[in-house]
Amino acid sequence: MKHFSDVLAESIIAKRSVVCVGLDPDLAQMPPELVAGFARSGGGEEAAAACAEEFCCHVVSAVAEVAAVVKPQAAFFEQFGPPGWAALRAVVRCAHEHGLPVILDAKRGDISSTGRAYARALFGGAELPGGGVADGLAADAVTASPYLGEDSLTPFTEHCAQGKGVFVLTRTSNPGAATLQERELDGRPMYLTVAELVRRLGGGYIGEHGYSDVGAVAGATAPEALSAVRAILPRAFILVPGYGAQGGSVRNLAGLRAGEAAGVVVSASRSVIYAWRDSGREYAAAAADAARTMRDDLVGVLEA
Amino acid sequence: MKHFSDVLAESIIAKRSVVCVGLDPDLAQMPPELVAGFARSGGGEEAAAACAEEFCCHVVSAVAEVAAVVKPQAAFFEQFGPPGWAALRAVVRCAHEHGLPVILDAKRGDISSTGRAYARALFGGAELPGGGVADGLAADAVTASPYLGEDSLTPFTEHCAQGKGVFVLTRTSNPGAATLQERELDGRPMYLTVAELVRRLGGGYIGEHGYSDVGAVAGATAPEALSAVRAILPRAFILVPGYGAQGGSVRNLAGLRAGEAAGVVVSASRSVIYAWRDSGREYAAAAADAARTMRDDLVGVLEA
Repeated sequence: MKHFSDVLAESIIAKRSVVCVGLDPDLAQMPPELVAGFARSGGGEEAAAACAEEFCCHVVSAVAEVAAVVKPQAAFFEQFGPPGWAALRAVVRCAHEHGLPVILDAKRGDISSTGRAYARALFGGAELPGGGVADGLAADAVTASPYLGEDSLTPFTEHCAQGKGVFVLTRTSNPGAATLQERELDGRPMYLTVAELVRRLGGGYIGEHGYSDVGAVAGATAPEALSAVRAILPRAFILVPGYGAQGGSVRNLAGLRAGEAAGVVVSASRSVIYAWRDSGREYAAAAADAARTMRDDLVGVLEA
Repeated sequence: MKHFSDVLAESIIAKRSVVCVGLDPDLAQMPPELVAGFARSGGGEEAAAACAEEFCCHVVSAVAEVAAVVKPQAAFFEQFGPPGWAALRAVVRCAHEHGLPVILDAKRGDISSTGRAYARALFGGAELPGGGVADGLAADAVTASPYLGEDSLTPFTEHCAQGKGVFVLTRTSNPGAATLQERELDGRPMYLTVAELVRRLGGGYIGEHGYSDVGAVAGATAPEALSAVRAILPRAFILVPGYGAQGGSVRNLAGLRAGEAAGVVVSASRSVIYAWRDSGREYAAAAADAARTMRDDLVGVLEA
């Protein structure tokens, strides 16, 4: 079974891109004529989910050439009920059809049989009456929250042997990181304790490109934090949100390079998928342009 | 709008019970003849979800007389895809039909527009094309993870003004609590910093019974931790998992009482809903007996 980290590394190398396009379908930010079309087709949750699916699949298709990976955010689909969950599954399938690996941003975390049920929901594998297993969302990797501790992450990392990946929240890009993550624990910021946990969990899952299948989420808004996380995690992919709309910048990524594939994926959602709002162009074309600009802006991370 | 905390307090008083029945539908622990019936009806995700729904609704109906509240665990439904999400919604509806408030155990947490989307998914309120809003899962309260910080909890607590409740993970009942929660932060265990955050977030949402709509999750496996959390949170409902299958005991709950309604709900899942496995009786009747035994075992918490 090919390692998730190798799939991701090879996508980065092939595209010469560390761009991760976040898929956060928000009807209020989509072209009104697109949403109006679905309103005419009947409205309701089904229409909302179909609209989210169409929007995301068109964006995926348009950015496929320049994005290394895509990151659908589960909440934006879950808000539309069962049809929303079906739309999320369809968006994952659409990304796979375009050769894009999928990091499902779900930030789950629970222990024991519950943790394993979350892993089955996101990766697949639930046993069904009469035999066979459920497909789940068929994500390639997921984001996971470490608050419950090590035994809330192992239900996900156990799937690394089947080609899956996990990105553990470490130092996020929001002001609330000050509430816990940046607080001093054993004489240093707490997120470094999490980074060490990530290293321990990922040590047994190293791919041919030298990267682990267990990575870390660390935000572009805190450059010192990023460097400190990299120092503890030389072999981890770091998923960096906060580029674009949240105010992170490429300068904050200097020094993060860890190998041929850079060891970093940089995520932007709103600034790419809703780029049409500034340019007035067709939304998928505008998203492709924004993703291309972002790739070029970040190519230095690959060449540093 | 009635406070969630008042709904919960009145349910506890009416039932003379602090029992929360956790609904974790696991086909492998259900009566084989029940699962086989759904296998014959076609199998697949639909059959799995229908089986989970029927099992949970029968249990809800049987325990309604002695349980104060029920707590469906999202992962066990999500593993069955869109039909699983629909089954979860049906189980919430079934609980409401039996007059039971619902704490949805989802352990979500994210910031900004994403956090608000999670809140809409669990509580309802997503705007739909053509007007109207989605029902969401219509939960009365949710569990939330604090790792991302204060701004990942406010998207949930903002719903308290509309009669909703939030239980913030504080000191959980698993061994992994040692990874972060019990570590020393500013000279005391980190979970107490979270408890203070819960107090701050809940201060503006106090119901007529004197309890806040923002509560804390603290496990029965750590009695000192429970007492320390209560000392910081005199007006919070504490949701105590780990009773029963996880090894907690009623002795650990001594001293937690905070008022007429005790201020505590104690959760058990497997030891109640799969009680048929030990007794060999019909599963819903066995669950009702186990819930009644648990209520009687815990009645001291109300009378202390």
